Amino acid sequence: MRILGIDPGIAIVGFGLIEANGGQAQMLSYGAVTTEAGLPLATRLYQIGNDMEELIAQCKPDVISIEELFFNNNITTGIAVAHGRGVILYSAEKCGIPLYEYTPSQVKQAVVGYGKAEKKQVMDMVKRLLKLRAVPKPDDAADALALALCHARSATSLLARANLAAKQTI
Amino acid sequence: MRILGIDPGIAIVGFGLIEANGGQAQMLSYGAVTTEAGLPLATRLYQIGNDMEELIAQCKPDVISIEELFFNNNITTGIAVAHGRGVILYSAEKCGIPLYEYTPSQVKQAVVGYGKAEKKQVMDMVKRLLKLRAVPKPDDAADALALALCHARSATSLLARANLAAKQTI
Repeated sequence: MRILGIDPGIAIVGFGLIEANGGQAQMLSYGAVTTEAGLPLATRLYQIGNDMEELIAQCKPDVISIEELFFNNNITTGIAVAHGRGVILYSAEKCGIPLYEYTPSQVKQAVVGYGKAEKKQVMDMVKRLLKLRAVPKPDDAADALALALCHARSATSLLARANLAAKQTI
Repeated sequence: MRILGIDPGIAIVGFGLIEANGGQAQMLSYGAVTTEAGLPLATRLYQIGNDMEELIAQCKPDVISIEELFFNNNITTGIAVAHGRGVILYSAEKCGIPLYEYTPSQVKQAVVGYGKAEKKQVMDMVKRLLKLRAVPKPDDAADALALALCHARSATSLLARANLAAKQTI
């Protein structure tokens, strides 16, 4: 199963593609889609939509795993990220890719085994589980790989695989 | 100048189209794009994007006037609206329509002449300025007409018209 993890944003959208089979997971690619801070919001959103469609066409994921949005102290940043996340969800639906959403604590639980793990622990586990030489950069790409791993290791993923197997049997 | 006002949302997106010439404004159409509450967020966003593109193709506006987003007490609703607004901005940019954003107090100032006007006063002025028999329903459509009127009566609109005239002269 090819899983595309997405860390939503407006300036940087991190992505990470893995191939997951049973307990094994292999990193296929990762990176980030970026937009310039000086551009109008609508222009940046349009770029994100276009880049997402191109990314999905290149990656050909079976599913997308995306972070749920929580508001921290900076509500202004949160509003902008929610705009970007809206366009990412739109693009996923347009391309017909099933979408799964996970909270940061679900990602930590699935990747580290502890819902309140530190960011560094998550990064280290991404490196270890995917047998990488170093923690991927930027952080947004590493977060996206963690989201992909979260789906691979989660119950919804097992359920999705069972449904897929059932469909293939029918 | 054809101005399409948009009141962003996720369950209801209000729209109102006016033709504005100098101090005169005429209502051409209004209504609302709606999505079902039970559907997945990505599905609703995809519908909003499609409906916006269709609406723009039908209305052929010169500009779009959309409300800026402020968070009230309900942050959960605010996040959903920001997702929808992101897709609306994306669609406007995709269709190449210039976009102007106004705060609720700018709309009140432009339509009623007082930035802290009551909602009812705005509705009554929409009815009076557009010479309508009744206040348009739903409220989201009336709000969208107010946004269109706000642009027609605002400084940015005058500036946009001056730029357009300059372009036509060149």
